[in-house]
Amino acid sequence: MNTNERIGLWIVGAWGGVGTTVAVGLAALQAGLADETGLTSALPEFSDLDLLEWSTLTIGGHEIRETTYRAAAAELHRNSNVFTVELLERVGDRLEQFDRNVRVGTVLNVGPTIESLAADSARATARETAWATVERIGRDLAEFRQNNGLDRVLLVNLASTEPPVPDDRLQALRSLNWDDLERRIRDEQPCPVPASTLYAAAAMLAGCAYINFTPSLGSDLPALDELARRQRVVHCGRDGKTGETLLKSVLAPMFAARNLKVLSWVGHNIFGNLDGRVLDDPVNKATKVRSKDHLLQEILGYSPQTLVTIEYIESLGDWKTAWDHIHFQGFLGTKMAMQFTWQGCDSLLAAPLVLDLVRFSEREWRRGGCGVQAHLAALFKSPMGTTEARFAQQFEMLRAWAADVRRNPQRSDAS
Amino acid sequence: MNTNERIGLWIVGAWGGVGTTVAVGLAALQAGLADETGLTSALPEFSDLDLLEWSTLTIGGHEIRETTYRAAAAELHRNSNVFTVELLERVGDRLEQFDRNVRVGTVLNVGPTIESLAADSARATARETAWATVERIGRDLAEFRQNNGLDRVLLVNLASTEPPVPDDRLQALRSLNWDDLERRIRDEQPCPVPASTLYAAAAMLAGCAYINFTPSLGSDLPALDELARRQRVVHCGRDGKTGETLLKSVLAPMFAARNLKVLSWVGHNIFGNLDGRVLDDPVNKATKVRSKDHLLQEILGYSPQTLVTIEYIESLGDWKTAWDHIHFQGFLGTKMAMQFTWQGCDSLLAAPLVLDLVRFSEREWRRGGCGVQAHLAALFKSPMGTTEARFAQQFEMLRAWAADVRRNPQRSDAS
Amino acid sequence: MNTNERIGLWIVGAWGGVGTTVAVGLAALQAGLADETGLTSALPEFSDLDLLEWSTLTIGGHEIRETTYRAAAAELHRNSNVFTVELLERVGDRLEQFDRNVRVGTVLNVGPTIESLAADSARATARETAWATVERIGRDLAEFRQNNGLDRVLLVNLASTEPPVPDDRLQALRSLNWDDLERRIRDEQPCPVPASTLYAAAAMLAGCAYINFTPSLGSDLPALDELARRQRVVHCGRDGKTGETLLKSVLAPMFAARNLKVLSWVGHNIFGNLDGRVLDDPVNKATKVRSKDHLLQEILGYSPQTLVTIEYIESLGDWKTAWDHIHFQGFLGTKMAMQFTWQGCDSLLAAPLVLDLVRFSEREWRRGGCGVQAHLAALFKSPMGTTEARFAQQFEMLRAWAADVRRNPQRSDAS
Amino acid sequence: MNTNERIGLWIVGAWGGVGTTVAVGLAALQAGLADETGLTSALPEFSDLDLLEWSTLTIGGHEIRETTYRAAAAELHRNSNVFTVELLERVGDRLEQFDRNVRVGTVLNVGPTIESLAADSARATARETAWATVERIGRDLAEFRQNNGLDRVLLVNLASTEPPVPDDRLQALRSLNWDDLERRIRDEQPCPVPASTLYAAAAMLAGCAYINFTPSLGSDLPALDELARRQRVVHCGRDGKTGETLLKSVLAPMFAARNLKVLSWVGHNIFGNLDGRVLDDPVNKATKVRSKDHLLQEILGYSPQTLVTIEYIESLGDWKTAWDHIHFQGFLGTKMAMQFTWQGCDSLLAAPLVLDLVRFSEREWRRGGCGVQAHLAALFKSPMGTTEARFAQQFEMLRAWAADVRRNPQRSDAS
Repeated sequence: MNTNERIGLWIVGAWGGVGTTVAVGLAALQAGLADETGLTSALPEFSDLDLLEWSTLTIGGHEIRETTYRAAAAELHRNSNVFTVELLERVGDRLEQFDRNVRVGTVLNVGPTIESLAADSARATARETAWATVERIGRDLAEFRQNNGLDRVLLVNLASTEPPVPDDRLQALRSLNWDDLERRIRDEQPCPVPASTLYAAAAMLAGCAYINFTPSLGSDLPALDELARRQRVVHCGRDGKTGETLLKSVLAPMFAARNLKVLSWVGHNIFGNLDGRVLDDPVNKATKVRSKDHLLQEILGYSPQTLVTIEYIESLGDWKTAWDHIHFQGFLGTKMAMQFTWQGCDSLLAAPLVLDLVRFSEREWRRGGCGVQAHLAALFKSPMGTTEARFAQQFEMLRAWAADVRRNPQRSDAS
Repeated sequence: MNTNERIGLWIVGAWGGVGTTVAVGLAALQAGLADETGLTSALPEFSDLDLLEWSTLTIGGHEIRETTYRAAAAELHRNSNVFTVELLERVGDRLEQFDRNVRVGTVLNVGPTIESLAADSARATARETAWATVERIGRDLAEFRQNNGLDRVLLVNLASTEPPVPDDRLQALRSLNWDDLERRIRDEQPCPVPASTLYAAAAMLAGCAYINFTPSLGSDLPALDELARRQRVVHCGRDGKTGETLLKSVLAPMFAARNLKVLSWVGHNIFGNLDGRVLDDPVNKATKVRSKDHLLQEILGYSPQTLVTIEYIESLGDWKTAWDHIHFQGFLGTKMAMQFTWQGCDSLLAAPLVLDLVRFSEREWRRGGCGVQAHLAALFKSPMGTTEARFAQQFEMLRAWAADVRRNPQRSDAS
Repeated sequence: MNTNERIGLWIVGAWGGVGTTVAVGLAALQAGLADETGLTSALPEFSDLDLLEWSTLTIGGHEIRETTYRAAAAELHRNSNVFTVELLERVGDRLEQFDRNVRVGTVLNVGPTIESLAADSARATARETAWATVERIGRDLAEFRQNNGLDRVLLVNLASTEPPVPDDRLQALRSLNWDDLERRIRDEQPCPVPASTLYAAAAMLAGCAYINFTPSLGSDLPALDELARRQRVVHCGRDGKTGETLLKSVLAPMFAARNLKVLSWVGHNIFGNLDGRVLDDPVNKATKVRSKDHLLQEILGYSPQTLVTIEYIESLGDWKTAWDHIHFQGFLGTKMAMQFTWQGCDSLLAAPLVLDLVRFSEREWRRGGCGVQAHLAALFKSPMGTTEARFAQQFEMLRAWAADVRRNPQRSDAS
Repeated sequence: MNTNERIGLWIVGAWGGVGTTVAVGLAALQAGLADETGLTSALPEFSDLDLLEWSTLTIGGHEIRETTYRAAAAELHRNSNVFTVELLERVGDRLEQFDRNVRVGTVLNVGPTIESLAADSARATARETAWATVERIGRDLAEFRQNNGLDRVLLVNLASTEPPVPDDRLQALRSLNWDDLERRIRDEQPCPVPASTLYAAAAMLAGCAYINFTPSLGSDLPALDELARRQRVVHCGRDGKTGETLLKSVLAPMFAARNLKVLSWVGHNIFGNLDGRVLDDPVNKATKVRSKDHLLQEILGYSPQTLVTIEYIESLGDWKTAWDHIHFQGFLGTKMAMQFTWQGCDSLLAAPLVLDLVRFSEREWRRGGCGVQAHLAALFKSPMGTTEARFAQQFEMLRAWAADVRRNPQRSDAS
């Protein structure tokens, strides 16, 4: 039984659109003001897994801008017509409690576009050394745990997308074990890893789980997986699968199963939130496009011409609108087309996935699991630990894990 | 090995759009003029099942209109811009051979709209008794087998959609065994079953397999399944899953897996082929709408508001264009929307499925299987023998069958 | 100068979605809480016409249901995510003032579907004679004028769409002059005209202008135009042009000007407001479809195959979503397609048009105009007094009128 | 009467997609194998203008690639499923006659992407001086006229889009008169104007009319208009308005007339013809995007956020597919959306416009007109000689011209 454990959810990018929606949503669930629509973990088939209760969760995090949950939520309401005024009023006190747990993040190696969004207090962190940053993050997490009497803390990366690590550097990083990587983070100037990886390392060193909801590198290095196993914590990622890519992972297997040849797949995405402003920088966008585009080849087994654009259109606010045009060839060379548009509110699609990831990860961790969680592939665009890209098969992996939890509530290989 | 067997494909509705495309497509495959795009059975994962070779197949069928494959194919080319002139020229001789195997079908119990399309020669069949019709069909099949030296014949129903059998009559029919049903077909005036069921019975009595590619009743009665087992033939159906419903069976599971609540699902279908003209009759359309609409409830576990329209728009020819609007609710009550359009050429999507069904059915039959083939659910809108409505799971059923064929090329329970 | 005149806007269907939005919108404009976006009459090119100021307007009306503006507006906010809570709070007092001017309407000849929505108090009006109804409406209007010190009153029909008047009866009605029609309304049982025409007659007899924003018959009879001229009041109609039909009147002229041959034009409309529930009755729907469909023939000069559906999908609330598929033929017989979707909030599109019609009509009336106002065609689906169906040309008619008002602020032919 | 005049249509980019379709279309019209669908000049309202008859036209042109009309047409048929085999067979001889009039064009100042498409014979022209090129073009035109006994020749630019002329150089060019510009073309190295302007100058010097169907600079300089008037020839341009931009010029005026505030207008264009391959070069694309994007500001009077992309997707061939998302604000701040998709075959939309421009231009020229033809604005994306961007008003300009031709078949100001 988990009734006595208290769980902390530490959000990097705490006051961003998704972070704010996680906070509002959790507060609403705790107050009984919202139902569980949108939460995979609330499906009947997962009801007997002894997942954590909403009441046991509290929120803290790192942030480089200055605002509050109330202000950020009010802005989302105004710009994107989400939440009700009544709801925001009723969860206001709870949001203020969460605010008290928010600390200054780091801008080290986040790239100039993200850095330009930072408040002065956060911008100063650029002068910290990498290892000092790791240690500061660790202290913030420890303090969060202590102040709130928490048994476990999971850090979720919801920060804006970083520029990609160049391929050659990435290859070098992949060859390192943790001791080597730690040494390089301590010694090298400039720091060889992006901020998302510093957060991952700091979390693991502090005995916390790590969830990477962004396409940034985070814990996707053998050295970090080694560290996670050494510290006996779970981690997973990358890039929450909320909209257009979710549909790709659902639709592409159909074309494959019908032996319909995809000639081209064009996807245009427009939206106007902060994430969009960061992705308007071509460098940051490159990381995202890569994350959205690779799966077609994996599912189809060949490479049709593809195009993915992501454009910042301010008036849309948080409403991500995608148009996909799929051109395919059927029998006797006949060319046909499918098109779809997706009009989804990004933060409201992402926030329940974050809560799902926390619940599923906490459960695996609690029963003694550690290292990368490949069975969470259905929730990620670029899942770690598996090459399965088909949504239905990914979902079966989650169900298989659930069956295993039922059979083995405590892992035999756990110490 | 199947190299010595010769297989007959008998098409009810031989010269219709799908039938014609099956004939053109088969002729093209036999002549090496077409690749296997669009054919599920040609996927690498089914390549070692010893499925029949194209060269072993020949085509015949029943038809109530008067035309030829060449003329019907030329009309499809003209109205719908499919096939190339060059292809049609090169397969012309083969099509003429197929033409020679076409016989007059029956208009008994097909409903007035279909009957109005019939040539005089076919209209006269309305005066035949039901059992005389069954016997005549049987003789046509026997003659087809003999004339062409065929080892096995599979009858595929590609005729226009019949009006639905009223619920109370259907319930009564479902309670009968074959002996009772045969007696009633022999004795009752008017005949208690639709033409599609007469064809199914006649095929089975003649030792042929039966495939129902339409939403008409066909062999979907316990009595017919009993007959199939008694005659040791396979059967399957109903209603080939080619477009909008295929997408429903692919997309609805995603909404379910994400716990997104579908509020309404509206699907409008427009097209202008002969099938469309028959479905313009509200009575015939009712059968089709039912076939396209039931699966959402099965997949989601609740009943969102749904709407399915099918409208005859002459200018579209064989190009079935569907617009679906899916309204759904996410986290914190947020309403979002997905829309898709599907622009598919109906006959070119259906024809490879027909060839797939023939190949898969023949293989199961050859290894000693009989009765309903639930493992072909992925190819039908309203699959018989299973309630599984999710496409990915249906496709896994097909793969499981393939694995079983590999393990048991000859069924142990086969005589 | 109009500064001293006070104007009354009398709404039939006062608490419906459009009526409520007109009330909220007017209150917001009067309080300086809204800008004039969406109002044609607020365009710079009409700024020097001495149109009425928002401060001079007050609202009353007839209604057959029991609610209040506050409650109706809160429901619209809840179901369709329009208005802000803050706005509704700030205009609440003003809405209560409008509420006090609302009286019980009539259900005489509105058809069973509309009647079924009526409160008991309104349902009792079915027993009134037609002429008693006319007289009661007249008394309500007189009282409204007197209580509020109004100089002019314009009645706007925003009630749900009535069933169509049968063609033969309509033809007979069109042949009558006012004296004959009045006699028949007084004497005939059942009443030969629908409720919308009784309202029109009552308004004119009471010296009020009449605006028909619905496809119902209203004042579209020679006898009513005669009465309008006799009473020196203006009238106009039918059916506010807010969405899909607006686009037809904009797009069809392009196909005509390019000599592109429209092969088929399919329009599917889905929405979930009260209007939608009434139109779900095929009888009422017939009136609406006719109003949306006729203009293609008028603009193109030939009749492509057309299809218009209107379906009630509850989850959409006031958000009218239309999908139009336009199939056309270009050079050398090439078939091409244009598709559009329109996602508009019906009440928010209609309300500013209502305010525009009141302003333009009041101005023409004030300068001495009377009878039908053909120059308002751009605002109607089925404009009275003209056969011009092309939007750009209709808008030029409005500009020509504006130029005439500038030249002749007082009509020379006015008494 | 024009019955005795013979007219030459000289196409720069003769064997491109549009050029080929013009040739096939003209041959089909001359042979009575095609109707006049898609031709504005064939509308009844222009039937009494004494426009040229199809039989009087012959085709020649410049080209930098090596092929033939038959081969280019067959490729279009194969890749894009346009034309019928039968039609191509029946016009083959005529196409061969046209082929004989095709000469090697120039690659001078066309930019590297276009140059890379050129055959060796054409690539050699890069070494010619600019003035030698002008003279060579003049000789080709004179020879075309003489060989075919032509009374008038009109040169139409259908070549791929050139890179834009830098703003400062353009401003300098705009300040020159013809004598100065001629001197600079003769003397300056490298040549200060793009190839399209050399063609324009050469045509005018040779007494030919000039029509610029591309966004390239062409004759859009005061010096060229001066030359046209001096030589008493007509000219017009720029960039034929065939699809998405046509719709913008039709739809934007509606939003303006309704006072609906366009918040953003996003347009994504995908297609796979040669034009698309050239526009895949960002430099050439810049010219095109500018041509597609400016009109919204002109029509709306303010600048919403806009985005135009043009992407080369090979599988689409000549089928230009556009998705436009228009986000707009209505009454009380309500945000709504319109989306459209346009699936048009580019060459088949463009070719009739080319023929229209030839007919209209020839008529104006024949009656004594010279200089820029502003009244042809409806056929161009960036019309010369007018700032009118609204399609309906542009079409009225064409009608006004037609009325003037009726009144003045011979211009009084013509010598």
